[in-house]
Amino acid sequence: MNLLDLSTFLGAELRGEPEVEVTAVASLEEADERTLTFVESRRKLDEALTSRAGAFIVPDGLELPGRNVLVSADPRFDFSRAIRLLIPAEKISEGTSGQAVISADATVAPDVRIGPFVTVEQGALVGKGSQLYPGVYVGRGSRIGEDCVLYPNVVVMSGCTLGNRVVVHAGAVIGSDGFGYVTKGDVHHKIPQVGQVIVEDDVEIGANATIDRAALGTTLIGRGTKLDNLVQVAHNVQIGEGCLMAAHVGIAGSSRIGRYVMFGGQVGVADHISVGDGVMVGGQSGLARDVAPKSIVSGSPAFPHREWVKASMVFQKLPEMERRLRRLEKALGQGEDEGKP
Amino acid sequence: MNLLDLSTFLGAELRGEPEVEVTAVASLEEADERTLTFVESRRKLDEALTSRAGAFIVPDGLELPGRNVLVSADPRFDFSRAIRLLIPAEKISEGTSGQAVISADATVAPDVRIGPFVTVEQGALVGKGSQLYPGVYVGRGSRIGEDCVLYPNVVVMSGCTLGNRVVVHAGAVIGSDGFGYVTKGDVHHKIPQVGQVIVEDDVEIGANATIDRAALGTTLIGRGTKLDNLVQVAHNVQIGEGCLMAAHVGIAGSSRIGRYVMFGGQVGVADHISVGDGVMVGGQSGLARDVAPKSIVSGSPAFPHREWVKASMVFQKLPEMERRLRRLEKALGQGEDEGKP
Amino acid sequence: MNLLDLSTFLGAELRGEPEVEVTAVASLEEADERTLTFVESRRKLDEALTSRAGAFIVPDGLELPGRNVLVSADPRFDFSRAIRLLIPAEKISEGTSGQAVISADATVAPDVRIGPFVTVEQGALVGKGSQLYPGVYVGRGSRIGEDCVLYPNVVVMSGCTLGNRVVVHAGAVIGSDGFGYVTKGDVHHKIPQVGQVIVEDDVEIGANATIDRAALGTTLIGRGTKLDNLVQVAHNVQIGEGCLMAAHVGIAGSSRIGRYVMFGGQVGVADHISVGDGVMVGGQSGLARDVAPKSIVSGSPAFPHREWVKASMVFQKLPEMERRLRRLEKALGQGEDEGKP
Repeated sequence: MNLLDLSTFLGAELRGEPEVEVTAVASLEEADERTLTFVESRRKLDEALTSRAGAFIVPDGLELPGRNVLVSADPRFDFSRAIRLLIPAEKISEGTSGQAVISADATVAPDVRIGPFVTVEQGALVGKGSQLYPGVYVGRGSRIGEDCVLYPNVVVMSGCTLGNRVVVHAGAVIGSDGFGYVTKGDVHHKIPQVGQVIVEDDVEIGANATIDRAALGTTLIGRGTKLDNLVQVAHNVQIGEGCLMAAHVGIAGSSRIGRYVMFGGQVGVADHISVGDGVMVGGQSGLARDVAPKSIVSGSPAFPHREWVKASMVFQKLPEMERRLRRLEKALGQGEDEGKP
Repeated sequence: MNLLDLSTFLGAELRGEPEVEVTAVASLEEADERTLTFVESRRKLDEALTSRAGAFIVPDGLELPGRNVLVSADPRFDFSRAIRLLIPAEKISEGTSGQAVISADATVAPDVRIGPFVTVEQGALVGKGSQLYPGVYVGRGSRIGEDCVLYPNVVVMSGCTLGNRVVVHAGAVIGSDGFGYVTKGDVHHKIPQVGQVIVEDDVEIGANATIDRAALGTTLIGRGTKLDNLVQVAHNVQIGEGCLMAAHVGIAGSSRIGRYVMFGGQVGVADHISVGDGVMVGGQSGLARDVAPKSIVSGSPAFPHREWVKASMVFQKLPEMERRLRRLEKALGQGEDEGKP
Repeated sequence: MNLLDLSTFLGAELRGEPEVEVTAVASLEEADERTLTFVESRRKLDEALTSRAGAFIVPDGLELPGRNVLVSADPRFDFSRAIRLLIPAEKISEGTSGQAVISADATVAPDVRIGPFVTVEQGALVGKGSQLYPGVYVGRGSRIGEDCVLYPNVVVMSGCTLGNRVVVHAGAVIGSDGFGYVTKGDVHHKIPQVGQVIVEDDVEIGANATIDRAALGTTLIGRGTKLDNLVQVAHNVQIGEGCLMAAHVGIAGSSRIGRYVMFGGQVGVADHISVGDGVMVGGQSGLARDVAPKSIVSGSPAFPHREWVKASMVFQKLPEMERRLRRLEKALGQGEDEGKP
């Protein structure tokens, strides 16, 4: 695509030669003359000046004399749009593989692409434009919306609902049983998990992530929320819209996560707690109590992030602090033991 | 089912109209007049009084005037039994799919249900009443007991043994190689992992969990133990009966876990340690040493839970404590540095 | 195999009867007279003396009077070699299953073994001696080297490269999309992930582990590195040669891990940091900043391991320390509140 067309598509001002062609995208250091790249800030200026890229998306005010630039109010966003234009999303082959097993009682839109070794059980529904990669399982009565992508070996158990444009990466499991037992004497009796999972529009679910069905009612993943790989969502959890949860996050049963909440990797959330809108949680933190909206917290158990940073620094000096304390006690003629109540 | 029959099945006293029919189950807030629900304690009384449920399982002494109640010594347990009565467990289609590949040399009981894209290798054995969902793999010589359920894409590598009534959720892997190497110079040479996995009766294994085969000998999951999603059990680990392990728990090689041990989510256990019977471990804790039976511990490294709670609260005040310490030093004319040994 | 042949193969001196046959391997306590076992140190001497093993690999200087021993400079390593000799590695059936779907446009070496329900997409390449277990998916244009083993249900998305002798355990996913979004207003727009994954020779990847493709460029797993089960490697991460990473480790985007780095279980690494060669990190630690080569660190955030051990011990005494501090304040006539700034 030539830069004129690209600038028109992006709505970005072109400063450079309109007829130059770019066919690929790359980072500054890996770019060559057929490549589009981007510069987000002045900090990358030196790198940009030595880059061999054929064209750059740059913020207003950043000069790259003699180079082809497209001036953008949001270079990262426009670069992201340009990627999809230059490199169309992969699709599996059209039609339904002869090696797939689709129940005669399932409803599959005519343009759905279904790879080999896919199973779609009775009563299931797959909306138009969706793709089921090889090895996908869609259980009884489950509904997959329009323009969804289920990558290889994804499992959607029975009675679950995915909205439109939901992307589920390879090996993820939706609708497995929640972890619920009644213990009588020394036996853990299973509580049948007869609820469902609802995954709203525009959700993305990472590879090998697991989302349990509700015991009763619904486990909910709100619109536009993105879950990274290996995330665990327990039964009856409710996650609001627009959340971002990094890898290995685990959320225990019945907890409610607000809208636009962000969790770093390996965060753990206890059961039956409530996390307010806009909360941000540092990696490896543990939430054991309700968290007020807009809080920024860290630690296990978590408390305000700024205080945690300070406390963590003092933690490293604890042996020294103990020595200082002992010295003071000596100076005052106090034994260590006397300090005990 | 009418309430008379239900009360007979549960052995629960009916106070209300025997001919009322319930066909589903729900929580108090989602229940309607065709629905059975349950109340566990007085705290839910207000919610119960406004619920539209057709019938309630209640503890003795809890009054819901004018409503149909079934009086139970253990409402949660009896509700759990009622669920399975009203909503029979899902089963895949009878018989063996023509799209499955079953070795002529495997032994599969006649009533086993096998979905498409299942592989059962030579010498494997599958007991009566078991179900293998689509995409399941059963390796050479592995034995699956009676009434087991292996959900989609479960992998049981060769030479593993599952008892009766074992449930393995989608994507879980049993019998992968343990993580064992001998490092010579700068090469990590793999130690062939030629042991097995034994999973005893009534065990349940969560989605995408992983259980490694032993290097030599056996990795053991004891009877009635329940592992949540994404749990990792390393080679030669021995887990006793009746344990409950929440999601993302990781247990390193050769550690021994007693009976009726409970681990919160994301607990980590070092290798070659021993955890006594009845131990309870708080979420995100790390066990680096042996833990005595019946201990309740938290923290990383873990120590008694009650003390950990107190220490964690003081942790949050560390910056303030340091200021107090400095103030005392000033009052005594001591410099901070002098406290060093 | 008789002990004479075994000693010749191992290059180990035989002290005992050359014609004794061993056919299996076991630990000291499980060994019988047909079994080879090993003793690594004097600490196991008592156990060895009562073992029923037919033969022992022992270090020089360890005497087992009246028993058949093979004297080795490295008993664990030679035992490991003996295992593979006595128990050849499992292989799936020869040839390509009629139930596999191999693109006419893929290049598969003639001796590759391919199980049922395998998909190899167009342009993919599988080198000689490799095995694809049932349910494996190899995406478009991906290259699998020679003598690789991909266990059941492994997914390699498009455009990824695996070197020679790479082993990928069941359910692992290579080349899933990285977790990258541009947030505009309240929408998280996906950044297309168009980079690749390169897995170098002799790498081993654990069951249900996930390795994301780069946004642009390459996610790299260096030669001879071993990743345990459920490890997460984010987009654009670079891991050097010979690293060992235990289960549940998570490495966030663009971080660079040096050579011969060792991570305990559940370690988390923040994005865009650099970890030097030879670093060792204790289990559950969190790396938020660059780590200098050869460092041994623990804690979250991590600092030198020895100091962390001491600080962790003092942490357990924090409530007592606070009482001692208060006592000093009383002795000096200071109120707790006065310590505040």
